[in-house]
Amino acid sequence: MNRVKSKYLKGKEKFAIGIDLGGTNIKIALVSKAGAIRNYLKIPTNTQQGKEATITRIKQGIYQIISQSNLETRSISGIGIGAPGPLDFQKGIIHFAPNLPGWEEVPLAEIIKEEFKIAVKVENDANVAAWGEKTFGIAQGVDELVCLTLGTGIGGGLIIGGKIYHGKNNVAGEAGHIVVNKDGPLCNCGNFGCLEAYSSASGIKNRVSRRIKELKISDPSIFYQNNFDQISLVKIFEQAREGNPIVKDIVEEAIEYLGIGITTLVNLLNPEMVVLVGGITNEGDKLLNPVKDIVFHRAMRYHVADLKIVFGKLGEYAGVAGAAALLWDFD
Amino acid sequence: MNRVKSKYLKGKEKFAIGIDLGGTNIKIALVSKAGAIRNYLKIPTNTQQGKEATITRIKQGIYQIISQSNLETRSISGIGIGAPGPLDFQKGIIHFAPNLPGWEEVPLAEIIKEEFKIAVKVENDANVAAWGEKTFGIAQGVDELVCLTLGTGIGGGLIIGGKIYHGKNNVAGEAGHIVVNKDGPLCNCGNFGCLEAYSSASGIKNRVSRRIKELKISDPSIFYQNNFDQISLVKIFEQAREGNPIVKDIVEEAIEYLGIGITTLVNLLNPEMVVLVGGITNEGDKLLNPVKDIVFHRAMRYHVADLKIVFGKLGEYAGVAGAAALLWDFD
Repeated sequence: MNRVKSKYLKGKEKFAIGIDLGGTNIKIALVSKAGAIRNYLKIPTNTQQGKEATITRIKQGIYQIISQSNLETRSISGIGIGAPGPLDFQKGIIHFAPNLPGWEEVPLAEIIKEEFKIAVKVENDANVAAWGEKTFGIAQGVDELVCLTLGTGIGGGLIIGGKIYHGKNNVAGEAGHIVVNKDGPLCNCGNFGCLEAYSSASGIKNRVSRRIKELKISDPSIFYQNNFDQISLVKIFEQAREGNPIVKDIVEEAIEYLGIGITTLVNLLNPEMVVLVGGITNEGDKLLNPVKDIVFHRAMRYHVADLKIVFGKLGEYAGVAGAAALLWDFD
Repeated sequence: MNRVKSKYLKGKEKFAIGIDLGGTNIKIALVSKAGAIRNYLKIPTNTQQGKEATITRIKQGIYQIISQSNLETRSISGIGIGAPGPLDFQKGIIHFAPNLPGWEEVPLAEIIKEEFKIAVKVENDANVAAWGEKTFGIAQGVDELVCLTLGTGIGGGLIIGGKIYHGKNNVAGEAGHIVVNKDGPLCNCGNFGCLEAYSSASGIKNRVSRRIKELKISDPSIFYQNNFDQISLVKIFEQAREGNPIVKDIVEEAIEYLGIGITTLVNLLNPEMVVLVGGITNEGDKLLNPVKDIVFHRAMRYHVADLKIVFGKLGEYAGVAGAAALLWDFD
């Protein structure tokens, strides 16, 4: 490791390493306390190679970032990791993770700390996204915040009184599992009619796939991108906008139920801001405007008086930035 | 006012006055810091006489309680008031209250403080019920708590990190306005399909009344108590249990949606305990058991691992006890 002091240190700027551990990719970055991404690395998670291989790749990635940065490890405040699944943020143990097969009761903080002799924090990925947007993104200065991660699934991060809210068993914030229709489709969690079953990428794709089969559609290629293994959310939204009756109501329901779920969140938690992040936000105003319409019509008067519903602004860096920001106290 | 020191003071026991301001009754009590109700008074609110008359009755009630108690006002920590409607707990101003016609932007704390020269706190009634159960009731020692007040409407009090959670505009906790069915009946809040429209006393009664009219039932007296002006929740539940098809599904849905709403609360907030208070809890296990079944089947695994769903134990004193307890710091 390069022990020459970096020019950054002379400016007394502080740094931390932020890691976004996902089912597909591991993103690792050196992040300054001012929120700048100094070095950035994106490597495949390769979950099929097993837990140990993934952990080794994380360690190698960290070494690479440190080496590129010209910083000593002791010049780095620590390492923050955003990880999926229910986890114990205090002990840094991942209980399990649906997207990381074989990960059960993994003491990830301890493992990484053992290797780098540096402070390590592990936090739920949706909480990390919320923390990133609060610390460096659209929600700076906002102390009552709900962040929804609209991806394969739907996660939620709650900021309450300026802090991440964990609940009794560290599993608070599961906004994807607001029940929006008791008789709705089966959700990944085992329940029926959760928001995630309607409005997540997997929920929408599952509903379209089922309909293609039910209707025995001979050529469903308009819903696929490139190859026939991968049904495409972009194509589905495109077709819905063109009025294709096979998908139109599914997309409309996805948007409507997202509005309904946010209405429930707003009436319950009275946040100052709801931040939407994740893949589906690429739909832009075509998603945001109808969702806002629903919430501002349905939620209670005092609850929407000062409410802002916005997209996050950190994009793919929300995870690494928020993870790094776990190391610092911004009070 | 009697200025002879009371025997209580010799024991250095502390007292506060708790007031539960409802649309029908005003309850006032002298409450000891140990949670004992020393003096208790229940007077009609008489809302039709107007705001000023009601405020005068509150003042008279307070004088009566102080006089009965043989305490000096300076021996009393203060006066806590649980009140309906959106309000500013910091300034003690009631913005408005659907059940108190004419109450708009009423600086109740200031008015009462002016009269008695003593600390006055005003807090939302559902928050006060939660605080009462936490301080003196079933939820002692519980720091992550949801309390649902199941009465004419449905209110919610959230205890987060051991404190009442207020949200950005002091209107957090509106659990009655969790949207359980986007296409459901019109709710008092203007939205459709809120929990309150299905599972509150008024929601159930409204649905039964509408059905009696729709089905042109010639003798609906089995649903009425005493006179024909007042449809009775007790009778409705009784008839539903006997299998009366006019009300059976309405009561079943009331219970099912209550379970669905609590499932959403549990997945979102991961509380240690959900406390149910209010009139409908008189149904006892016939209500509680099916609700628990739904939540423990539908909510996420880690969320229900240590979850308790219980009835409050302060009964009609929850409001006055919780209001008095606003005056003390129990940390």
